[in-house]
Formats: sequence, C-alpha cells, structure tokens
Amino acid sequence: MFDPIEKLKEFVRHPSVSTDPKFAAGMTGAREFVAGLLRSIGFAVEVVPTALHPVILAERGGDPKWPHVIIYGHYDVQPADPLNLWTTPAFAPEIRGRRIYGRGTADNKGPLMTHIAAVGRLLERVPDLPLRITFMIEGEEEMGSPSFPAFLAQQRDRLRKADFVFLSDTGIPREDQIVITCGLRGLVLCDVEVTGAKMDLHSGLHGGVLRNPIQALAELCASLHTPDGRVNVPGFYDDVFEVEPWERAELAKLGQSEEQYREFLGIPAFHATEGFSPFESARFLPTLEFNGIGGGYQGEGTKTVIPSKALVKISCRLVPNQTPAKIRALLYAAIRARMPADVTFRIVDQHEGMPYVVVPPGRPNTPPDQRPVLARAFRAADTAVAEVFGRPPLYLREGGSVPIIADIRRVLGLDSVMLGLFLPEDNLHAPNESFHLGVMAQGMLASEKILEAVARG
Amino acid sequence: MFDPIEKLKEFVRHPSVSTDPKFAAGMTGAREFVAGLLRSIGFAVEVVPTALHPVILAERGGDPKWPHVIIYGHYDVQPADPLNLWTTPAFAPEIRGRRIYGRGTADNKGPLMTHIAAVGRLLERVPDLPLRITFMIEGEEEMGSPSFPAFLAQQRDRLRKADFVFLSDTGIPREDQIVITCGLRGLVLCDVEVTGAKMDLHSGLHGGVLRNPIQALAELCASLHTPDGRVNVPGFYDDVFEVEPWERAELAKLGQSEEQYREFLGIPAFHATEGFSPFESARFLPTLEFNGIGGGYQGEGTKTVIPSKALVKISCRLVPNQTPAKIRALLYAAIRARMPADVTFRIVDQHEGMPYVVVPPGRPNTPPDQRPVLARAFRAADTAVAEVFGRPPLYLREGGSVPIIADIRRVLGLDSVMLGLFLPEDNLHAPNESFHLGVMAQGMLASEKILEAVARG
Repeated sequence: MFDPIEKLKEFVRHPSVSTDPKFAAGMTGAREFVAGLLRSIGFAVEVVPTALHPVILAERGGDPKWPHVIIYGHYDVQPADPLNLWTTPAFAPEIRGRRIYGRGTADNKGPLMTHIAAVGRLLERVPDLPLRITFMIEGEEEMGSPSFPAFLAQQRDRLRKADFVFLSDTGIPREDQIVITCGLRGLVLCDVEVTGAKMDLHSGLHGGVLRNPIQALAELCASLHTPDGRVNVPGFYDDVFEVEPWERAELAKLGQSEEQYREFLGIPAFHATEGFSPFESARFLPTLEFNGIGGGYQGEGTKTVIPSKALVKISCRLVPNQTPAKIRALLYAAIRARMPADVTFRIVDQHEGMPYVVVPPGRPNTPPDQRPVLARAFRAADTAVAEVFGRPPLYLREGGSVPIIADIRRVLGLDSVMLGLFLPEDNLHAPNESFHLGVMAQGMLASEKILEAVARG
Repeated sequence: MFDPIEKLKEFVRHPSVSTDPKFAAGMTGAREFVAGLLRSIGFAVEVVPTALHPVILAERGGDPKWPHVIIYGHYDVQPADPLNLWTTPAFAPEIRGRRIYGRGTADNKGPLMTHIAAVGRLLERVPDLPLRITFMIEGEEEMGSPSFPAFLAQQRDRLRKADFVFLSDTGIPREDQIVITCGLRGLVLCDVEVTGAKMDLHSGLHGGVLRNPIQALAELCASLHTPDGRVNVPGFYDDVFEVEPWERAELAKLGQSEEQYREFLGIPAFHATEGFSPFESARFLPTLEFNGIGGGYQGEGTKTVIPSKALVKISCRLVPNQTPAKIRALLYAAIRARMPADVTFRIVDQHEGMPYVVVPPGRPNTPPDQRPVLARAFRAADTAVAEVFGRPPLYLREGGSVPIIADIRRVLGLDSVMLGLFLPEDNLHAPNESFHLGVMAQGMLASEKILEAVARG
C-alpha cells in the first residue's frame, strides 16, 4: 500500500484550478496522478473526455449481484488568491502540527485520498471482497460541474445499476463529531456589470454630472437585503421547504455554542436571518451573497477617477424546493426593475445547481421505497463512525453546495451517503486551507469499515 | 531654440508617477530633463529637496523693480492603469492626427512645455525683456502636493515679492474657446475599509450568518446620496458659496449643448444635482464620488467566498467656502453613525485641498485692492487670447482641483492667472490621454504675448 500522506502531498502539488485556463497543466497533472494511483491499487481506469475537464472513471468489476458503490470526488480546486495571505505557498503542501496545509488539502484532495487509501487497504486485506466499486472523480466541481450532467447522461446505462454514491465533500463541527450530510443548498450565480460613461473620467471635471457606476452598483446591492437579514427579492422565499422537527433536534446536538462560532469567525456580532439561530440560518434558509466587487482604482494612494465600469459577483444559495431557474428569473427581474435609467448594465449568467435532500432510514419522513443497500450503507456508517470516532454521527443538512449530488439523483436515480470530514478551521475556499491528519486517519478506518459492512450485508 | 514637440516626447517618456514608489526612476528622469531644458534657455536652476519629491525652482533674475511672474507646473503624472485600455503604451508618446498621446501629455507636461517654449522664444527674440521669471515646477501635484505647503513656507521670503502666478493646468471646451479659470474645487479624500470575518469564508458553509463586508460597504455607499443627486451628509452644503450672476452668464456662453456633452460621455442620461444644469453642477456644487471599490473575487468565473474585507476610495470636491477639515469631520461622522455594529471598519485619511476663487478686474465683485500687475496680466491675457485664438476667453470656475493654488495664496499672498489649455477629449487621468498640438502651438504664441505685455506694462 502507498503512503496516503506522501501521496496527498504529491496530489496537492498539482495546481488544479479548474476555473482558470492558465492552470491547464495543473489539471492534467492532477488527473494523471489520480489515474496512476487508482491503477496501482488494481482498478481499470478510464479518462472520459468531456467538453472541458475529463472525468476519471475507475472500476473494480465483479459479480453483477454484488452491491455496487460509486465513490465520488473531485480533483480540481478553488483559485488560491489572495496569494499574499498564505503562510506557505498554496501549492507547496506543508505539515504543521496535526495539519497539512495547501489549496485543496480539505476540498477535496484530502477526503478523496482518504477513500482511495481505505479502498486500497480493504482490497489488500480482503482481495475477494464481494463489492463492486466505481471511482467517479471529476475536474469541474469548483466551477459548478458544467460538463457533469452530460457525462452522467452519456454513462447512464453503466452507472445507474449501482446502489448508492459514497463521498466526503462536506463538513463536521469538531474532530470527534462526524456528520452525515442529508441535504445541500443549491446555487445560482451571476455577475452584474454596470457602465456609466464610455471611458474613465476625471472626477473633478465631470463629478456631479452623471451617476457613478460604483454608486449605481452600491445602490443595487444595498437594495437586495432587508434589515432583518432576508433577501429582498419578491417571491424569493415562496418555495422554501419547511424544516422537519427531527432536523432541528439533530442540529441542537451540534455542541458548538454561538459564542464559540462568533469567536471562530472573529465578528463583533452575527447577522443571521431574524427568527433563526446562526446555525439554522446557514442550513435551512436561502441566501444572497456578494462574492466580489470591483471598479475604479484599488491601489495605494489615490486616483481621482469616475470609473467607466463596476462589477459585482452574486451567488444565491437555495434550499429545497427552490429551483435555480425560478430564483434566477426573480433575481434578474428585481435587478432590472431597480437599475436606474442613467446607466447601462448587463447580467452575466454563471453556473447553478439544484438543492438536495436525502432522509436516512428510520425517520418519520423516510421514503417507504428506499433502496435496501442505501439503507444498509447509512446503518453501516452509523456503526462505523460510532466505533472509530467514539460517538455516532449527526444527520444534518449543510449550507454548502455539491450540485452534482442532485444531478446524480436526477440522471442516475441514486442517492448519496455523504460522510463529512472537514472542519470549520480547514479554511475551505480561503487562504491557508488545511486538512486535519487525525480526521484523515480515522476517516480511512471508518470508510474501510463502511465499505466492508456494505459488502458483507 | 529647441523643438517643443520633440522635447515633449522626451518628457513623456519618463514615467513620473508620483504616487507609486515603483516609479522613482521615472520621477528622477523627468526632473532632470526639465532642469536641463530650463538651463538650456538661460535659467539658473535649483532642485529643492522636500520630504518626498523635489521642486524645481529656476530663475531669470533682473531689476527688482521689474514685474515678476512665477510660472507653475508639475512634472508628475497620474498612474496609467488600466494599461490594457491604451491604444499605444502610456509612456511611449505617439502623434496621431493633430494629437500627441501618452500619460501626462495634457496633465501637465504639454501645457508646461508650452510655457517653457514660449519663454525660450520670447527671451531669444527680446533678450533684455524687463520681466523677472521664476519657474516653480513640483512633483507631487497628482498626489495632492503633500510637501508643497512646507516648500512654500521655506521659500516664502524669496517668492512672496512676485506679482502673480501664471499656469496652465485647467481646461477649455473647444479648440477655439480659451477659458481663464477663476475658481477651482477643493478636495477631501479618504478610504473606508470594512472587515467582516477575520478570514475569507466559504459562502455556502457560512452564508446567512454574518453581514458580508461588501454588503455593509454597499449599504454605506448607497446612503451617501439622495435621489436628487445631492450628497446625503448632514451639514455638507452649509457653507456653499452663492454663484455670482456674471458667472452664470459667462457659463451660458460655453457653446456646448447638453446633448453634445451627453454624447461625449456616452451616458443614457445625466444625473446632475436637481435644479442645476450638468455644466453648473460640475462647477458650482460640491460632490462625493467613489473613485474605486474592491473586495472578494474579481477574476474570471466564480469563487464562492464571503470576503473578509472590502474597500472603497471616496473623494469629495469642495467649493468656496467649504473647508476640508469641516467636510472631513461631517463625512466621517456620517460614516461612523451609519456603519452597523456587526462589522468593523477603519477610515484612512488621504490628501485634501482648499477650494479657490480669483475675480478678474472689472467685475462687480473684484476686490478693490487687487494688485496692478495681476490686473495687467488678466487684461494682457484677454487681448492675447482674442488675437491668437480668434475670440476672447471665458472666465469660469472649474470642477477640477489644483489645491496648491489656494496654498500659494495662503502662504505667499499671490493670485493666479490660469490659462486653460486642455480639451474634454484629452482624457485626463484616463487611458489614451492626449494633448492637441494646435492648441499647444497657439498656446505658445498667447503665452509669449501675455508675458511680453506684462513686461512692457
């Protein structure tokens, strides 16, 4: 068996930023690395081309009557900027204390390595394990998986006979409290670009004559929330799913106090949606956030300019049963209605994803026709987590989005068992991302136990 | 005599961006170039050190009883970014049609070269001209001249015996309509930086929990204007100087239609202060503009982050009798009162300058004790401009700021004759800045005539 930590370092050294074409070599490098690793533990690896970044599909065949698990992961990572805020370079992984630092260590290279290593060890120990395993590792998750639905449709006949999907791309509150993620928020993203004059202007000669595009954009952005923390877009909350009582009870067991969370964030006070705790607000309600804003001079000193253009990048998180198409339409209508006539503007579509919910076995709202192998996998996860981490998992919806989980259900009819592995302090999507090596080691043990239990029935 | 166009090209090739320490060599180069040129036409040149960029002081002495003019200019320029919007590189001057393109061609290297060439020609033609001339050329105008007041105080005894200051650092509406600028707006600049969480956050995991600093900044910016185009800061308009009737009449002669101006700017509609035309709004009223805004991810594609910080760069233009100290205090009080308690923020002072007014001779409100040589210079300018450009100048206040003009009056007691030379299409402070070579040639003739008439009395 390979050394999982050394292999993770090697994986992180490939700068696989999918959204930026400058990182094409990093994408290729990461893909070839994963393909090689899976071959080394006995898998038949296929690199399936898509419109953009290929998907790695690796199979361990076997008796068609065996249970069949698809293990999902992604080999791409978020951009690493602002680079100057990293203690050590983003793509030069370094272990400090019990953590490994680098872009993608937690999202998703570390958790993916956890499962590859678990499978490697399990098959070394039990070479005749009665379990069909397919690794399905994509390269576009951080840009919204634009090619993945087409890939799923193309591979549908081959993949839909599986029983469930297993993955780790969600979070946990503490090292000793694993979460099985039962829901994910959906996404709608867009850019809004406002143009004032056709060129940058001297703010003295022309100031007071026209609406500055930064002002127009600020006025738009300020209009998109109400003081109680809600999104101020008519119809935005129409389809929001009522929270199940067992979900609130499960969330109450989280064990993190609001004061601990506030200190972790380093904010003077929360600004959650009125009537919801911060923990509830992030999981049970939709949001509208500004991911970036820019216009005019941002350097040192001053430049007395009225810029020609200003841009904001917006993302909405959706909960069941909101749909990206409806939320996009409502948001765009609000933007169009509010933009003043003395500027021009355009809205640029970015990616989107459906929200997702799966109910574990034995709950009041568990579907009566839930697949037996899926139910078995949930129970195996409950037992394995309790053994390895010392306490059973919590079953929670999460604020983040993995849009392909909803795509997989839509196209393949399969639900997912999402074993959370990353901690709040892992700094996902931010400088100094890291992954906890203790969680990784225990995660490997848990993954191995879960897969073995699913195989043995 | 040197070739003024060739010398201007040489001047523009020195990238003298004063606000950015990376351009130190360009500053030195531009300074040495000007010093050499002035020596070549017979001036005794002194490079006077200051806390930052030295001032060039060049004298042609003579009989103390001769009239004495100080010609002001600046050898520094604005930053050239965004560089990708320049047709030819900012510091590689190029003549296309009747224009010379490059950063600083209009602001202020071209107009300064106009006066140096006029003096050179005049002294070649009339070597015994009874006129004392001092060139005073600074290197910090584009960053608010932080060292200039101290320089003036240090050189006070030597400079205060002059009669007036002569310069070209203001604008004209058309090639055939010169403006003598009688007023300038003042300035107050600051940055506001808002901090939310102590690090960038994943907008899924934490969205809905805290106030995004971009949202807080947008809400602040949106609060700073009222729908009628006024600045929404209590007390902001308290000290605004009433416009003189002759000023409105003079502005009415401008000869540019609102439609022409709107097309020049390329905007769908004006957004001037209610009750004022766009031309009046830019000259007679104060403003608050956003010169830049930035926060979060601004690149291609998406990055679903809640940024830790967001920044806006604000500038206010002031009119007589507003003072920077009072406006700064009012603005900061409004910002502090409006910023929500769930974010932290800091306000960073940038530079400031007093507004300025000088009334030409023969107006209802001309000061009775106006200096005879200043009045003579105004009359000489009136005659020379009418002869060279075919019509007399207009006497207008301008929206831009040259804060040192107020400093010169405060420290030396001298008023300024500001012969406007740059056109709206010169793109000051913007990409593709240029200077009109016809205006330059006529400006040289006018400057020569004005100086000769002042000398001859």
